[in-house]
Amino acid sequence: MPHIPVDENLPGIAGLFAFRPETAAPLGQFAEVLLRGPSSLTVGERELIATVVSRANECEFCFRSHAAVAAEALDGGRAAVDAACRNADDAPVSPKVGALLKIALAVRETGRAVTGELVAAARAGGATDLEIHDTVLISAAFCLFNRYVDGLGAITPDNDELYRQMGARLLHGGYLGVGAAS
Amino acid sequence: MPHIPVDENLPGIAGLFAFRPETAAPLGQFAEVLLRGPSSLTVGERELIATVVSRANECEFCFRSHAAVAAEALDGGRAAVDAACRNADDAPVSPKVGALLKIALAVRETGRAVTGELVAAARAGGATDLEIHDTVLISAAFCLFNRYVDGLGAITPDNDELYRQMGARLLHGGYLGVGAAS
Repeated sequence: MPHIPVDENLPGIAGLFAFRPETAAPLGQFAEVLLRGPSSLTVGERELIATVVSRANECEFCFRSHAAVAAEALDGGRAAVDAACRNADDAPVSPKVGALLKIALAVRETGRAVTGELVAAARAGGATDLEIHDTVLISAAFCLFNRYVDGLGAITPDNDELYRQMGARLLHGGYLGVGAAS
Repeated sequence: MPHIPVDENLPGIAGLFAFRPETAAPLGQFAEVLLRGPSSLTVGERELIATVVSRANECEFCFRSHAAVAAEALDGGRAAVDAACRNADDAPVSPKVGALLKIALAVRETGRAVTGELVAAARAGGATDLEIHDTVLISAAFCLFNRYVDGLGAITPDNDELYRQMGARLLHGGYLGVGAAS
């Protein structure tokens, strides 16, 4: 039950974006640049970071919707996403992405948990400054989005097919239209 | 010592914004709308929420810079800011703002900590839907900014006069120019 009046046809963050379009516009642009813009991290890798952080934050709406995107976009599909969520150490991803997932999980706890050792391990796996930056920012962003969604009690459906559809829409359509009238 | 190469003349988030202007642009616009845009919450009240959350997250850079803004903008000045940071229950603010601070601190922990009782108390103090929404989003935003700053080890000066100057610049100039060449 949402804490503020939202359109019952707009689950999750879409309902919040429609409630407050003034803040939704820059947030949508921010997500689009960070998760879909030019990057040496693939869309699947970036969505995997978003998924693992949302899972650790126990935000069901963000976890299920971004897991659906990552499952489509990532080599290894849903099995790889589930493995990474269970234990980032055992994720069937490159050493670079494995090290970036550990940085993301540290950021989720607190920024001060990111150690020189975690950053050095990512560099040893081949991560660039920009990839390290974007990993920290993706994790921090989902610490915002997860709290925004759950803090306002946004509508959280329990329907796998709906999340699959939302995931396909986010994968192919991106973030600029989230919350817009459909 | 920052984990990525940043301009040594740009402390805190300014150095990160200059490193990655593509994500800085929408983040600056987002902060400007949320903290300076039209609202029935005053600039001082919104900056107080940002300060209390940053303090609880132990982000020294964000705490000291936003405390400087709030101290200028809030009725009660620095003493009121310090009291709110010590104990939100004892803050010399209106019952509405006191209840909103409690929502902000719940969001900081996890969105799922925002109860119907906390929201009802804010409404009883006179808070509107939009004020409740914006309080949740300001707290969530600083859960991003605090992690971004500390997760990348951004430059954190120890110089009260510098924070006072940054606070004055943020109060009067807003967030759109943060990280731009000065």
